[in-house]
Amino acid sequence: MEAEIELVASGGITSPKGFYAGATYVGIKKKGDNVLDLGVLYSQAPCAAAALFTKNRIKAAPVIFSQQRMPSEKVVAVVANSGCANAFTGEQGLADAAEMARLAAGNIGVLPEQVLVASTGVIGQRLPMELIRDGIGRIIPSQEGGSELARAIMTTDTVPKEAVVAVSVGGMEFAIGGVAKGSGMIHPDLATLLCFLTTDAAVDVDFLECALREAAALSFNMVSVDGDTSPNDMMLVMANGVAGNEPISVGSEKADIFQQALNLGCISLAKDVARDGEGATRLIAVTVAGASDVVEARLAARTVVSSPLVKAAIHGGDPNWGRIVAAAGRSGVEIEESKIDLYIGDICVVRAGCPLPFDKGEMAKVLQDSEVPINLLLNLGTATATAWGCDLSEEYVTINSKYTT
Amino acid sequence: MEAEIELVASGGITSPKGFYAGATYVGIKKKGDNVLDLGVLYSQAPCAAAALFTKNRIKAAPVIFSQQRMPSEKVVAVVANSGCANAFTGEQGLADAAEMARLAAGNIGVLPEQVLVASTGVIGQRLPMELIRDGIGRIIPSQEGGSELARAIMTTDTVPKEAVVAVSVGGMEFAIGGVAKGSGMIHPDLATLLCFLTTDAAVDVDFLECALREAAALSFNMVSVDGDTSPNDMMLVMANGVAGNEPISVGSEKADIFQQALNLGCISLAKDVARDGEGATRLIAVTVAGASDVVEARLAARTVVSSPLVKAAIHGGDPNWGRIVAAAGRSGVEIEESKIDLYIGDICVVRAGCPLPFDKGEMAKVLQDSEVPINLLLNLGTATATAWGCDLSEEYVTINSKYTT
Repeated sequence: MEAEIELVASGGITSPKGFYAGATYVGIKKKGDNVLDLGVLYSQAPCAAAALFTKNRIKAAPVIFSQQRMPSEKVVAVVANSGCANAFTGEQGLADAAEMARLAAGNIGVLPEQVLVASTGVIGQRLPMELIRDGIGRIIPSQEGGSELARAIMTTDTVPKEAVVAVSVGGMEFAIGGVAKGSGMIHPDLATLLCFLTTDAAVDVDFLECALREAAALSFNMVSVDGDTSPNDMMLVMANGVAGNEPISVGSEKADIFQQALNLGCISLAKDVARDGEGATRLIAVTVAGASDVVEARLAARTVVSSPLVKAAIHGGDPNWGRIVAAAGRSGVEIEESKIDLYIGDICVVRAGCPLPFDKGEMAKVLQDSEVPINLLLNLGTATATAWGCDLSEEYVTINSKYTT
Repeated sequence: MEAEIELVASGGITSPKGFYAGATYVGIKKKGDNVLDLGVLYSQAPCAAAALFTKNRIKAAPVIFSQQRMPSEKVVAVVANSGCANAFTGEQGLADAAEMARLAAGNIGVLPEQVLVASTGVIGQRLPMELIRDGIGRIIPSQEGGSELARAIMTTDTVPKEAVVAVSVGGMEFAIGGVAKGSGMIHPDLATLLCFLTTDAAVDVDFLECALREAAALSFNMVSVDGDTSPNDMMLVMANGVAGNEPISVGSEKADIFQQALNLGCISLAKDVARDGEGATRLIAVTVAGASDVVEARLAARTVVSSPLVKAAIHGGDPNWGRIVAAAGRSGVEIEESKIDLYIGDICVVRAGCPLPFDKGEMAKVLQDSEVPINLLLNLGTATATAWGCDLSEEYVTINSKYTT
């Protein structure tokens, strides 16, 4: 089927038709210029919705609350805050999450059971409900409010993360929009952060869940900042059907196009999260090719991009490629030293297991670039995967050594 | 059986009778005050020897070389260098490792097949054999040479690591001595560094291998600096029988005493490695108690002590305990939030899942100490484990961002 799938330069979660968002500052985070800490996403029509949640055994109250409602065909809104994770807060935390849903529902005039909740921030502290009760009424969702929501879920992120994919297929047009936040406690193990996605396409909820899982496998499950995962991770997609199409389901002729578009949007957001990792100065993209299967390719790519020694070396512009093969070796995937080719940028540093001399000036240029591509060819099979991460800087330590003080 | 087992304040790998060691500087590492880079350990009698090696799929030449000879009942010497890992060096690397064994054998007058080889340092570079050939003759093993060997295997270590355990049991006396080196690429996955152990007790080689595995499980497998493992990891124990006892074997009445002594020595060395982790300013000791089994207790303790967010928080004196429970939760072990008790030092911060207020001044004192004990009680079973690590400092990044440049 003829289709155009395009990553659009501007817009975000309210670019798909019928979605509205807004945010305000209620005082959960420290005050600062343009700081927002409470936001709402709202759809004019009930949505098919699917979500992936943290695998952490310690689950935050909003995760427990929202997970019980998933998958669903009647979600209309999400309320999200930053500055407090509402995690490790027991029964009181669950009550607070439920109240947050009721408050949001009252504010936008929908039923509380149609509202999901998400939180991110410090673990082990109660939500300041008084501030939320007082402030939530100031949120007025609008079609231009997507970027406000993107800012309201930021913690140590330095920039908001938004993406829009426009799709034209068989005479029909729809969009997929999204927001995400990083930028610490990021590791490939489902979701790994907050990410909300919207689409005005009508999508069958079962297919929506499969498509989200597939997109996560290629995007947020392939991103690592620090190897930690949080109790609050949540990746949500909502489809409101305003585009008026026949619902896309497994085997639909448009299913593959939808999947491609969702992948594109999620990969764009995931790369933005990696690029903005705490203290990061550059994006690292590790592609492992020639693996015996895709599980091995993904595991090797993720292990290399997660290695603190690889990350620190790239931060310092040190072409210490031995750490790359050592990390791949420790991942446990099948490897034959004598078959390995390794490229940093376009520079081949290992061919068939033999180190090659390289121009240090050229290498310095590659390592100073804002995006450092590493290509590891195992030459054992045909499977390929790419993982994204960031360099490890002194700044990461500084940020994380005084997060609550 | 009545026994005394004591960690002795001074001495090392040549404290057990009949062991000799020495080292020299041949020019593999950069020159500096008191720098040594090539060392030899030698026993006057052939030893029962057992070893554990890296699980990394990329194995350094000395690992492949030595692994083929293990377990053995005729090892008499080990030659080890720092500054170059002889890893990812193909057939030439294997030839170089074999030549290194021949050179050491020639120097001390033993058979090459009785010599093991170990290397540590930069991956992907050939050993400078010319320098080794020229310099190895300067090594004269002596009974006082243990600390020279300890220094000769140092890479980014700031201090040599040595330990001696003296044992008196049933009228017999023997000792266990050891040296180890860190201090990056340290993670619990067998051995995880270089560690050589000696004993003048006679020990059956099968029991020796079991005892080493058990000691590693409690010591070096419970230490993490950065989650990376190297192609060169090797943990070796040699028993020369000079004490003249009936060989200790599985079920011997002295077997349990030997195991306790070996554990004590290995835990002491492992803690030294953690304490001297790259950029470390303090030791972190995480004990998980009340786990449903020991596998879960170990996994949870290792995950907490490996968490970059926990490590960075402790570096900054930030009592961000939510990261501790989040890390335990991500480890995948069975956890019930409402049963958890958590102590930092003697200060209880969580009881039965409820955060407790604490005195910030007292907490600051605990976090500034050179050793920070964290006790996590899961209250689900009776299993306990302790893992050791270090804080994550800006200095770790600085060290690792210019290791080869």
